[in-house]
Amino acid sequence: MRLGLDIGGTKIDAVALAGNGSEVRSRVRVASGFGSDEVVRNAEAAALEAAQAAGGGAIESVGIGIPGIVDARAGMVRHAVNLGLAEVDLGGILTERLGAPVRVENDVNAASLGAFHLLGLAGSMAYLNLGTGVAAGFVKDGEVWRGARGTAGEIGHIPIVPGGTRCGCGQFGCLETVAGGGWVARKWGGSAAQPVARLFDAADAGDERALALRGDLAAGAAAAVRILILTADVETVVIGGGLSNLGERLFGPLRAQLDEQARQSPFLASLDLASRVRPVPPGSPVAAVGAALAGNPRP
Amino acid sequence: MRLGLDIGGTKIDAVALAGNGSEVRSRVRVASGFGSDEVVRNAEAAALEAAQAAGGGAIESVGIGIPGIVDARAGMVRHAVNLGLAEVDLGGILTERLGAPVRVENDVNAASLGAFHLLGLAGSMAYLNLGTGVAAGFVKDGEVWRGARGTAGEIGHIPIVPGGTRCGCGQFGCLETVAGGGWVARKWGGSAAQPVARLFDAADAGDERALALRGDLAAGAAAAVRILILTADVETVVIGGGLSNLGERLFGPLRAQLDEQARQSPFLASLDLASRVRPVPPGSPVAAVGAALAGNPRP
Repeated sequence: MRLGLDIGGTKIDAVALAGNGSEVRSRVRVASGFGSDEVVRNAEAAALEAAQAAGGGAIESVGIGIPGIVDARAGMVRHAVNLGLAEVDLGGILTERLGAPVRVENDVNAASLGAFHLLGLAGSMAYLNLGTGVAAGFVKDGEVWRGARGTAGEIGHIPIVPGGTRCGCGQFGCLETVAGGGWVARKWGGSAAQPVARLFDAADAGDERALALRGDLAAGAAAAVRILILTADVETVVIGGGLSNLGERLFGPLRAQLDEQARQSPFLASLDLASRVRPVPPGSPVAAVGAALAGNPRP
Repeated sequence: MRLGLDIGGTKIDAVALAGNGSEVRSRVRVASGFGSDEVVRNAEAAALEAAQAAGGGAIESVGIGIPGIVDARAGMVRHAVNLGLAEVDLGGILTERLGAPVRVENDVNAASLGAFHLLGLAGSMAYLNLGTGVAAGFVKDGEVWRGARGTAGEIGHIPIVPGGTRCGCGQFGCLETVAGGGWVARKWGGSAAQPVARLFDAADAGDERALALRGDLAAGAAAAVRILILTADVETVVIGGGLSNLGERLFGPLRAQLDEQARQSPFLASLDLASRVRPVPPGSPVAAVGAALAGNPRP
């Protein structure tokens, strides 16, 4: 079997795939922990639990998706700030502990590959991750395009509002400051557990500030789709990440924005943007499955 | 020999390459004309002149780069507004007249391939065409990426100034309205032969409106570089098109903009944008050479 681990900021989502990759045999979730020792220990435990839940048997390969800067070739995690990791040889350590080859991949790239596979796509696709931040991954003919220097899809740091909010990257009005869950929550304020969902509730109730923030978020997501298709002309943009769990509450306003753009511009209308957008099925383990597929020594 | 024709709005630039594609044996230029009959006749004449100037001999293949919407597989020019062409089977007609296989390609894609070859690049590259409009082409490992629907690189129609100038595409504040020669000339006014060069003269002389327009143009070109690298993470952005003939007068302010961005943002500084930009050598026949290479039946 092939194992895939999506190591997120709070939990590790682990799956075991049947040998040919077509079937998810088991899925388990454990807390991520913080710092190198805890994260490594929890990743090992998640892998072994997923293998056991799938009925045991030999582990052929392990793939790991992790947020941050990753050297996929060396299996090194350079920086994963939210997990307290820096310069950890995650691939090497887990290869030794699990007795199977381990590949490490950026989480958005892993999710791209998983979405391509789980949605049964062909040709070219971008995966737009609307989470705390905004980033995209590309898959073409089943292969991830990481870019020349591993930074393809960093569209969250394209400014779309000149002179807008100063972003953590140092620029102003980056896409991420408009459509990233972290910034939207910070602008909305409060300390609710699901701040963007609460903001949407307030917008539904007619709160003007909430309506404006929700409108900006939808416009920002539409701008991301436009940037991805006008630049790379991928056939499909799959949208995932934490905000995609809002479902129609997000995709409704997003489609309305894309339709409005098309009414304004015959050129955009000809590109048919709205029909090229697809949500990730809520709760589906795209990143873990993609990590398992990326971890396959012979893809 | 392999022939390449770059059919522009006013002239056809034709080259003959030695069989292996490494050497430009001849180069001729003739007027393009207008409308299907004239353009076809002039293209045929340009091809024959280039072949003769190269010493005659068998024509192995012909490649044509042309502005507008092209169906490369069918050899059809769907729309080339500036040349008065619509639904012309340019590939079929010229294949018959020249007795050699003719391939038709969008001019920016052809120029991308030519620039990749003439600059001796490897890996991934975007060709940013700063002409009347703004568009880009992509080459990876020597192959053009046209996109899923043939519209890759249409970055001129990504809005960068919300509520800005209304673009011909129907949107507002598109990159092309800031960094396209057509819009810059229109905003500057007058009827000089080289309006953007005259605008730069006025900026050198301290004219405030000219300084602002030149600043906007450089900032727009820098935004285009940022969009291309943050989205597709190509190793190199080669800049060509009519405005690139301004040479250091344009590239100086562009580099200054990229350096200023890097000072503002450690993230952008880490991407090293300024050093990844290269101008096309002035006057080099990138589009005609790229067309010849695209026209090669066995690349």
